[in-house]
Amino acid sequence: MPKSYTTQARIADLGEPRVIVIGGGFGGLEVIRNLKHFNGQVVLFDRHNHHTFQPLLYQVATSGLETSSIVFPLRKRFSYRKNFYFRLAEVNQVIPEEKVIETSIGKVHYDYLVIATGATTNFYGMQDVEKNGLPMKSIEDAIGLRNRILRNMERALLTDDAEVMNSLMDYVIVGGGPTGVELAGALSELKNNVFPKDYPELEMSHMDIYLVEAGPRLLGGMSEKASEKAKQYLESMGVKVMLNAAVKSYDGYEVTFNTGEKLISRMLIWAAGVKGSAINGLKPEVMTRPGRFLVDEFNRVKGYEDIFAIGDIALMEGDPSWPKGHPQMAPPAMQQGKLVARNIMNLKAGKPLKPFRYSHQGSMATVGRNKAVVDMKVFKTQGFFAWYIWMFVHLISITGFRNRVFTFFSWVWSYLSYDRSNRLIIGRPKDEL
Amino acid sequence: MPKSYTTQARIADLGEPRVIVIGGGFGGLEVIRNLKHFNGQVVLFDRHNHHTFQPLLYQVATSGLETSSIVFPLRKRFSYRKNFYFRLAEVNQVIPEEKVIETSIGKVHYDYLVIATGATTNFYGMQDVEKNGLPMKSIEDAIGLRNRILRNMERALLTDDAEVMNSLMDYVIVGGGPTGVELAGALSELKNNVFPKDYPELEMSHMDIYLVEAGPRLLGGMSEKASEKAKQYLESMGVKVMLNAAVKSYDGYEVTFNTGEKLISRMLIWAAGVKGSAINGLKPEVMTRPGRFLVDEFNRVKGYEDIFAIGDIALMEGDPSWPKGHPQMAPPAMQQGKLVARNIMNLKAGKPLKPFRYSHQGSMATVGRNKAVVDMKVFKTQGFFAWYIWMFVHLISITGFRNRVFTFFSWVWSYLSYDRSNRLIIGRPKDEL
Repeated sequence: MPKSYTTQARIADLGEPRVIVIGGGFGGLEVIRNLKHFNGQVVLFDRHNHHTFQPLLYQVATSGLETSSIVFPLRKRFSYRKNFYFRLAEVNQVIPEEKVIETSIGKVHYDYLVIATGATTNFYGMQDVEKNGLPMKSIEDAIGLRNRILRNMERALLTDDAEVMNSLMDYVIVGGGPTGVELAGALSELKNNVFPKDYPELEMSHMDIYLVEAGPRLLGGMSEKASEKAKQYLESMGVKVMLNAAVKSYDGYEVTFNTGEKLISRMLIWAAGVKGSAINGLKPEVMTRPGRFLVDEFNRVKGYEDIFAIGDIALMEGDPSWPKGHPQMAPPAMQQGKLVARNIMNLKAGKPLKPFRYSHQGSMATVGRNKAVVDMKVFKTQGFFAWYIWMFVHLISITGFRNRVFTFFSWVWSYLSYDRSNRLIIGRPKDEL
Repeated sequence: MPKSYTTQARIADLGEPRVIVIGGGFGGLEVIRNLKHFNGQVVLFDRHNHHTFQPLLYQVATSGLETSSIVFPLRKRFSYRKNFYFRLAEVNQVIPEEKVIETSIGKVHYDYLVIATGATTNFYGMQDVEKNGLPMKSIEDAIGLRNRILRNMERALLTDDAEVMNSLMDYVIVGGGPTGVELAGALSELKNNVFPKDYPELEMSHMDIYLVEAGPRLLGGMSEKASEKAKQYLESMGVKVMLNAAVKSYDGYEVTFNTGEKLISRMLIWAAGVKGSAINGLKPEVMTRPGRFLVDEFNRVKGYEDIFAIGDIALMEGDPSWPKGHPQMAPPAMQQGKLVARNIMNLKAGKPLKPFRYSHQGSMATVGRNKAVVDMKVFKTQGFFAWYIWMFVHLISITGFRNRVFTFFSWVWSYLSYDRSNRLIIGRPKDEL
């Protein structure tokens, strides 16, 4: 019989100050990268052994990219660093009085703590949607969705009941932000270019893709022009865009809207909101809804000298251009991560801290081939050129040169062949939702 | 609530003769490919929606290749064919009297049936090994093994108990055929080139890789020279080769050998044998041990006019050079598949059938970079040149041009960087063994 044993964090105590970063997302990695001259230990905790490039999860879900192109092993990222330690574990809570975190592998002391745990799907308390809907935040979610899409196509072939067949081919995507828009566009490319070849026995006109947004326009964070163009592109590709419509309930089959309208679909993809992946142990007054820690202008959680929070989990009020907080996307997280690394070194050296000012470079979303919308600081553009900008920006942002090369080849391949090659059901049905 | 419904195979009855192929492996695909002039329906049943290139599973398990490089969507393979139908389903049994197969989606009539279900792991009735050991036959097995290898390295860091740490870092690979040899070599490359960078906190000399073979030499199907060289290569890379040693029991921790010797390891990989994935319903006398159907020289299951079996599941006695049956590998399956397609057309046209003669081109196995052994019909070679032959043959055999390109780039990348990049734990621990 396997010998039972207890696990401990076992991080060597070298008598040096220790920075603990919780979460290897965009922000967390940027902290560590910029601590290269930090004279002490840097410890990263994450539940996964890899970084996930979340903006491209929808391409994994729709068979466009392979998993390994958008994830990167965290140990490999900093394997050249002598003072870097990684631990695959859950962090359960912070105990600020003792300067320790309590984790699934025991307690660990920190001198400086950076909470970079990101965000998780926010179902706004709708339990039936949480139970029956599909989130899109992790690589497992994306693979699960891919399996589901393909398996449901296979199932749709096998019934004479028109309603059942439709329920297996229809999609309701909730949330008109970039994820929803990009996913709707990618599904419509599957519908138009890929599935007709794979499923000649199915009438593709039965495949309906609904994109549902509670607000009055898509891409609420972008310009009116971008919203309008995105809607126009999606509609030209056959996506049914529903604005000012909110989902009230979903039982895994019937979607009910606030208007009383109903749709039948076995797949409701929920991309309508996020909440911070908060950690227990801090004073309740620093926690705001939805799940973000209030931080000062140095990204320190309010009332703590040595605990920072960055990225999606942090809410910084008072940045002159962003008085109500920064958008929950990669660039603020990365910029904050970089500055926090500097400020930790300033703190250690007894130097004054530098306040954070977010430099917003722009936003973008892609809809399909040759179709994207880009709002840059200095110009706005839509269509073919925007699509190139979108691809370029995403390519250079992917972690790891190899992943960039492979993603680039996958995209060139898909562009030339009109194909999305990774139509693979991996795993047994019982492992799925 | 989701509407319940019944599924049926729903394959259009066009009044044409129907060939059903069970299994989309090397043999099954070759049957279908060569039925391109068959005037009738061709239906493929498989439990997976993709073909798996099994010879490279070990590279997925050891983080060398990504999943999608070695699997290929079955629908895509023949999507250009008008008369091709695919069904994702389990086949439960054949009812020869009715000329139907009974599947998880109902009964389906055949005019000609080709059983190409391949082989599964043979634990020779050792229930504890089956329960606690890891097989290596499917893409899920390979991903599961990769997760396990990486998770156990993370766990090894977390204990002070030397025995426990060793149990998490040690490998016992049972079976000295190509799979065992290749897996042992790949693990040793992880040990020598990759893990020291990822896990500087672990002493790699604790990582022991045992390759256990019950017979007197490795690669029993190849020449003495190849066996000897493979052993020499493996030992030079630090693998401990145990010959004439058979596993008697394994409880998930302690491996006991027939000699009474014991080893401690949490990972026992079982590559010691296969048995046919047989289907119920045929006369018991056509079933031989282990699980193969006796076929005549036309690959017809003995006593049936219209049921063929090919590849790993078939046992054809009497081929002059292979009187006791052909080796269970891709080339015989493919050659049989090609001929069976022709013979089905001959049967239909009332022409005489052509008997099968296996043309053996050679065998090969790779151990590591620049190290392989190749026995060809006309020459034998080992080392660098053999390694190139091995790579070339495997590359051109992979299904799909895109997969070939991606595999090629992955190999070039690994060769230049000494890295194996896909060190990813995908899925939650509860989903694992």
